[in-house]
Amino acid sequence: MKNPLLIPELRELIAANDMAAIREFCAETHPETVAELLGGLEHPEIWRILHMLDTPLRAHIFSHFELDLQVELATGQNRRQMARLLEEMPADDRADLIRELDEKVRDELLPLVAKAEREDIRKLAQYEEETAGSVMSTDYAVLRPDMTVEQAIEQLRIQAPEKETIYYVYVVDENRRLIGFVSLKDIIVSKPGRRIRDLMHTDVIKANVNDDQESVAGKIEKYDLIAIPVTDDNDVIVGIVTHDDAIDIIRQEQTEDIEKLMAISGEHEITPYLKISVFRHFRNRSGWIVGLGIISMLAGLVIQRYEEVLLQFAVLATFLPMIADTGGNTGSQSATLVIRALALKEISLRDILRVLFKEMQVSAMMACVMGLLAYIRLIVFAESDAMPPGTTLAMLGLAVAVALALQVLTSTLIGALLPLIAVFFKLDPAIVASPALTTVVDITGLVIFFAVVSRFIMPA
Amino acid sequence: MKNPLLIPELRELIAANDMAAIREFCAETHPETVAELLGGLEHPEIWRILHMLDTPLRAHIFSHFELDLQVELATGQNRRQMARLLEEMPADDRADLIRELDEKVRDELLPLVAKAEREDIRKLAQYEEETAGSVMSTDYAVLRPDMTVEQAIEQLRIQAPEKETIYYVYVVDENRRLIGFVSLKDIIVSKPGRRIRDLMHTDVIKANVNDDQESVAGKIEKYDLIAIPVTDDNDVIVGIVTHDDAIDIIRQEQTEDIEKLMAISGEHEITPYLKISVFRHFRNRSGWIVGLGIISMLAGLVIQRYEEVLLQFAVLATFLPMIADTGGNTGSQSATLVIRALALKEISLRDILRVLFKEMQVSAMMACVMGLLAYIRLIVFAESDAMPPGTTLAMLGLAVAVALALQVLTSTLIGALLPLIAVFFKLDPAIVASPALTTVVDITGLVIFFAVVSRFIMPA
Repeated sequence: MKNPLLIPELRELIAANDMAAIREFCAETHPETVAELLGGLEHPEIWRILHMLDTPLRAHIFSHFELDLQVELATGQNRRQMARLLEEMPADDRADLIRELDEKVRDELLPLVAKAEREDIRKLAQYEEETAGSVMSTDYAVLRPDMTVEQAIEQLRIQAPEKETIYYVYVVDENRRLIGFVSLKDIIVSKPGRRIRDLMHTDVIKANVNDDQESVAGKIEKYDLIAIPVTDDNDVIVGIVTHDDAIDIIRQEQTEDIEKLMAISGEHEITPYLKISVFRHFRNRSGWIVGLGIISMLAGLVIQRYEEVLLQFAVLATFLPMIADTGGNTGSQSATLVIRALALKEISLRDILRVLFKEMQVSAMMACVMGLLAYIRLIVFAESDAMPPGTTLAMLGLAVAVALALQVLTSTLIGALLPLIAVFFKLDPAIVASPALTTVVDITGLVIFFAVVSRFIMPA
Repeated sequence: MKNPLLIPELRELIAANDMAAIREFCAETHPETVAELLGGLEHPEIWRILHMLDTPLRAHIFSHFELDLQVELATGQNRRQMARLLEEMPADDRADLIRELDEKVRDELLPLVAKAEREDIRKLAQYEEETAGSVMSTDYAVLRPDMTVEQAIEQLRIQAPEKETIYYVYVVDENRRLIGFVSLKDIIVSKPGRRIRDLMHTDVIKANVNDDQESVAGKIEKYDLIAIPVTDDNDVIVGIVTHDDAIDIIRQEQTEDIEKLMAISGEHEITPYLKISVFRHFRNRSGWIVGLGIISMLAGLVIQRYEEVLLQFAVLATFLPMIADTGGNTGSQSATLVIRALALKEISLRDILRVLFKEMQVSAMMACVMGLLAYIRLIVFAESDAMPPGTTLAMLGLAVAVALALQVLTSTLIGALLPLIAVFFKLDPAIVASPALTTVVDITGLVIFFAVVSRFIMPA
């Protein structure tokens, strides 16, 4: 809370080299706040302060640094000291860090890590990215069903310092198979002599280790959980994912979704915007831009094909931006709404007809308004004496209005349909990126426009 | 977990009218699962089953229904019975429901609610929407500093059933001013005789009741909290916001952001897509479409102004879609990245020069590629014999390439700049909606295109 106030305070302590005070400050302030303050210092200074603290606190603060700072610090540090720190880090944060390290650094570090933690790292590393296994922690508390409440509290008291949470505790049989769940609240409100077996819930909400991380976060969100147990195919508990991991996953998926919508490729990475190199920005962004640029040349070919019409009715060219923009805008709107509704599970593929019917009604209303707008624009601002013989301004106005209305209708429906088609092919609906959609409806819009206009004004 | 399996099971119990079994089923299954199953039934049937349960469980399941179903059920129900249910609901869910009810229903209901809960509703209703006060719950646990650990556990045991969480407990002085915080873990691991005063943390991460809900969720996310206390201006604790509320807030803001990006107005409401009426869809979406449609007419005016050039070099018209699309795409990309980086606090307004410098480099690379592409397109596919005397295809190609490159540069910079300008004026950067941006760079693109081309090919 008082971070802005703390910065000078900490700097003073550092300047005065007041080790006792620094130690006290770091122990009493939230590790996230300490990490944020230290993050502003030079690396050697960060290490100097971290080394004043005992290893558990050091590891705790370290795991609150931004991941890219962790990587930099770990790479530059004495391997043996870094191994000690790794041993004390929370299992999931440690796995994240190891995953980001250079192979060389990793190969030097791992042999120095104690066997139990090395095993744990190896186990967590085997899970594919974005699965429950890759985000879970192995620091969870378990109880046996035949324990009494009193024994359970005693055991949790001992285990507490090393566990991510003791508020949700999992009950396992002799093979570590998950057979139930109790909350610390359940335990606290029960009589000391009761058996865990009698108060545990057997209908446990859980995730499989290979489940997609998004579905795991979804369950935590849906059932308001503090943590969810992760089991393997034999129902043996192998980890937990906690509420704060769920928020991180939701944020990450959100960034990915928005970037997909805007057609930015790349690994939707953790690196902050300013730290991504110019060349990587270029690589992530140029693919779509060039691809869509080439597709937009196709739109140009449509215009080329109708050059004659354009030369005869030059005023038509002034409607090209309106056709293209309106198509892109209406299509993006319906696509966005459908993608969101799919993501929130408000609709599924079998609602396709209801969605199309709704979009058809909405777009029909929109089409009338936009058609009218185009008609007025043409009638009021075009010069009627410039019209070729045999055609009237009213005729041309009607043609433009009908064309724009059809463009609104088709783009809206295309926008709603494409995400559903993506779902049918088991693709992420968000791949129907807004720029891609805009470019597609550009082409359909131009075809519609010229086809309608030619039919109206060149009846021969 | 087993929802699909449970549905027929529950239906059978209902068909058999086996009240004892239904009661047992509802008591043992997660209330979210029960709510989901009941949600598929007709309203009278939902009420019939709810009335088999005792009021606390009934209220618990009821508060897990989707908000719009809660409103429908509450509106159709006997007011006196509904008042009993309201009294038992979690304070924050109750406040959400009351807020959504018709004024008439609310006015009939509230006098029937017991005084303590009515006071609570009145208090929560006074906070502005989207503030900490409007999302917090008043069911939090507090302790006094002079209690011993043993006394604290005894008190938490008694309070537990009515509290949202007993895992985070707040320590208050005689005026309910927040003076510290202890977790149940701290309490459990301490000796029974220790005083709460000696183990509480005094550097409490907290929120003010008028804080924006997004900043509250941000603190929960940043500090990995299970709950955050909410205080008034006198530092008196008035509520808590819990981790599951934080996820809901993050989801809600995410929907708002994406809808803003796609220029969909309206209240970004809780109503699912299919339940929003066609007319409301139209109202939410038509404003931007019509507004942008009118702006795109301005782009048309630019074309009208350069009609002469177009008539002379008809091939130029085939580049109009590429100019518009590429501008929209590059601008949307940079805007999206800057908006996200601002939201994730990776950059702030004072980084404006660094952002612009980075975007200038990226767009310069992109501009070269796209310019080259346009040049090749023109040289390869245009017919050189159609050129007016005194001009060459190479000249035209160079003109088009330079124009497109400039369009890439300017749109990228406009896309990066507009969100930062919005921040400067204390506006939400996401108002730089992608459709709006697309339309703006259409106009600038056309001006650039015709200005450059005229200069190149009409040196006179």
